[in-house]
Amino acid sequence: MSAGLFITFEGPEGAGKSTQVRALTAHLAALGVPHTLTREPGGTPFGTRVRDVLLDPTLQIDPLPEFLLYSASRAQLVTDVIRPALARGEVVICDRYFDSSLAYQGGGRGLSSELLRRITHEATGGLTPHLTFLLDLDPSVGLGRVAARGQPDRLERADLDFHTRVRARFLDLAAAEPARFEVLDATRPQEALSAHITARVDARLPARP
Amino acid sequence: MSAGLFITFEGPEGAGKSTQVRALTAHLAALGVPHTLTREPGGTPFGTRVRDVLLDPTLQIDPLPEFLLYSASRAQLVTDVIRPALARGEVVICDRYFDSSLAYQGGGRGLSSELLRRITHEATGGLTPHLTFLLDLDPSVGLGRVAARGQPDRLERADLDFHTRVRARFLDLAAAEPARFEVLDATRPQEALSAHITARVDARLPARP
Repeated sequence: MSAGLFITFEGPEGAGKSTQVRALTAHLAALGVPHTLTREPGGTPFGTRVRDVLLDPTLQIDPLPEFLLYSASRAQLVTDVIRPALARGEVVICDRYFDSSLAYQGGGRGLSSELLRRITHEATGGLTPHLTFLLDLDPSVGLGRVAARGQPDRLERADLDFHTRVRARFLDLAAAEPARFEVLDATRPQEALSAHITARVDARLPARP
Repeated sequence: MSAGLFITFEGPEGAGKSTQVRALTAHLAALGVPHTLTREPGGTPFGTRVRDVLLDPTLQIDPLPEFLLYSASRAQLVTDVIRPALARGEVVICDRYFDSSLAYQGGGRGLSSELLRRITHEATGGLTPHLTFLLDLDPSVGLGRVAARGQPDRLERADLDFHTRVRARFLDLAAAEPARFEVLDATRPQEALSAHITARVDARLPARP
């Protein structure tokens, strides 16, 4: 029995995910809809410790161990937070979920999709969002400041190539599951985006007395 | 081309692994044999941070995320420490390696052996020790103090069952790879054990001028 509604937000840094997550949360609160807001990596005491390791810029972390840490945080989050909230019939909003791993560690870092999917399936027990909002943004827009300074250097170029591969993988994932994904142009005004998102979510909420 | 010699020590806490690792390291140093000593989890700046998370008793960590963190630490250790040392022709001594995951997370926690082996293969690139010393100890010996206090309580009983399963899995692993494993009775005197271990290692060292 599938109770609750599981919604994820995906996309690059700077696309406005946090703003949209906050707007949707406020909308649900205003409606009085029970909901749980969480994020990856993190969301549990264990996941928060894992997040600190992943985001520590002083550490050398290869793509596979990086992915394994994201998966570990995800597994604990699913068990301790997401599944219990769904079982209570809540709307669960998660800022990033396994699509980020498929896009960043797969498309970006080049790890095998089959390996990522196998481990992800184990880590989540196959728990897939009902609805995923992909805030799509051309990485060269975010790096526009670089172009304004002249030719990008080697690291800036590598960074742009990486984010271009991540974006392409996100779009591939969305194309493969059109019923789950909603691709949104992140350059549109925030208010227009949140109006679109809340309408889509409202349509999925059970009728309320 | 396989250069170097990769030696691991396995067994439960309290079996004397650290003592034997130290004795073998001192022996190699006395012979002037280049060697690298490391341990799991840990051995790299990243792995040390992961170790701190794994050994934090305040955190709730399920078996799968626990295994994924061990595997992440292992992957970085293999890439940054073990493979480079072997490529330099050194003897690498590692205090615990993947057999511990197979025994503790597989035998002890009940995770699927096939899953553990698949992820372990990815994390290590298939790097298997040349020689593994298993310091075997009956867990009821270590828990003898419990018996001396009377009937074990529920947690003590669960602890004994867990360590009994871990021991059985270690012995199964050793039986399946007799050419790699040397099973040692950890109740023997330390000096007898280290004499045996150094003799076995000396026989594997390349002839020296």
